[in-house]
Amino acid sequence: MSYASQLLDSYPRVFNGDAQMLTATIDALTDCAQACTADADNDMSEPDVADLVKCMRLCMDCADICMATARVCSRQTESDASVMTSMLEACIACCKACGDECERMAMMHAHIQVCEQACRRCEKACRQLLDAMM
Amino acid sequence: MSYASQLLDSYPRVFNGDAQMLTATIDALTDCAQACTADADNDMSEPDVADLVKCMRLCMDCADICMATARVCSRQTESDASVMTSMLEACIACCKACGDECERMAMMHAHIQVCEQACRRCEKACRQLLDAMM
Amino acid sequence: MSYASQLLDSYPRVFNGDAQMLTATIDALTDCAQACTADADNDMSEPDVADLVKCMRLCMDCADICMATARVCSRQTESDASVMTSMLEACIACCKACGDECERMAMMHAHIQVCEQACRRCEKACRQLLDAMM
Amino acid sequence: MSYASQLLDSYPRVFNGDAQMLTATIDALTDCAQACTADADNDMSEPDVADLVKCMRLCMDCADICMATARVCSRQTESDASVMTSMLEACIACCKACGDECERMAMMHAHIQVCEQACRRCEKACRQLLDAMM
Repeated sequence: MSYASQLLDSYPRVFNGDAQMLTATIDALTDCAQACTADADNDMSEPDVADLVKCMRLCMDCADICMATARVCSRQTESDASVMTSMLEACIACCKACGDECERMAMMHAHIQVCEQACRRCEKACRQLLDAMM
Repeated sequence: MSYASQLLDSYPRVFNGDAQMLTATIDALTDCAQACTADADNDMSEPDVADLVKCMRLCMDCADICMATARVCSRQTESDASVMTSMLEACIACCKACGDECERMAMMHAHIQVCEQACRRCEKACRQLLDAMM
Repeated sequence: MSYASQLLDSYPRVFNGDAQMLTATIDALTDCAQACTADADNDMSEPDVADLVKCMRLCMDCADICMATARVCSRQTESDASVMTSMLEACIACCKACGDECERMAMMHAHIQVCEQACRRCEKACRQLLDAMM
Repeated sequence: MSYASQLLDSYPRVFNGDAQMLTATIDALTDCAQACTADADNDMSEPDVADLVKCMRLCMDCADICMATARVCSRQTESDASVMTSMLEACIACCKACGDECERMAMMHAHIQVCEQACRRCEKACRQLLDAMM
């Protein structure tokens, strides 16, 4: 069982949500943040780095936004619905933009395919969590 | 002149925006991120910390979200409008929620008044930048 | 296979290191960053929050430092040994301090035990990676 | 007066340090984090991006490390000397490495000169704070 699950299980106040869905989203967010950081770096090492600038830029944004979203989702105490929903929306927008650009460049490099998968999975997880909050 | 202004001035591609408005927003974001981090810490040291839990939680979210927004706004290359607008919206929501809670608790502690000012200024700056993008 | 492993496998330049050790460390760092963020939040919701202030503070530092270290370790391109070793040393110091404080408070709350495990595992992984670099 | 100064002035416990030196260091850290983020982005937009890969990589590390150090330095509650000194050491190492690479490339682009100044100022501020702690 992941730390995220264990820590949610031992949350001292009442948690009124789908614990499995939340921890799956947190995992998708932290995985996507790491994948985007590593992919931006892999792009930098490619001989065709000049063609990968849009991909790198979106990966950097996506790493920062997924990380902030993971932190907001990891906190249960006095959660503010307007903050959480708007962050999930921003994260969905960024995972979609980054996933689309990665898809466009995926034939060039295997690592961009991996990053696309991470973005698609994260976008889907955030969307499910957002839908469940509505 | 701030580094943010100097770096935007020397941006190698075309920048089609209000440079002064953008750098003022970046400054407000980085200042608010620092103020929220320090205020959450100040709250922790108060004898009535148990009453400040909502304030601390929103300060932590606000620090993380302002930081991510500052980074997105600091990048000009291949900027994606959907990413930038949704992050500004998330940041406005968080600065408002944190500012409101700080206002509610401001009579208790001087440091919470400082944090409220940082949140209000940042919310206003993000809103102006967002309006200018529409 | 984790994204971290897949992205390291597809790194376009030469990687001269122990890929399994590096990806295990990256996993330990991102897991510890999440665990510390969640544990600081769990602490905030406890009735005895005033007794958990040192634990919360070290958890917040540990989350920030593990995250920065995870990013440095996720980048292979033009890696600087002095940067990587000093960050690993800072991360070891912080995981040790946070793990020790968690150990001291572990009898109070189950979630602090989980956080201690995350810190101990991360400290050990960083130490092994640092030793392998010497 | 900066928020950092105001928040330190209203810290509820005893602060035994040089407040002016600490807040100057926090300012240097947040400024350097922003400058490095913006400079990595400016580098991405240059026609000679392939020659700027080392500069970009060090800027990304420096942005992440300065940010984490700024947060650690912004917290006064239950501060741990081993965490703070090792983070300052890591930050000094990274600002030096990034500043040296920027100096090497400064003739190419004006924005790299700005980033070098931010790194040098931050390195110096961290070193003074570290010396004062010894």
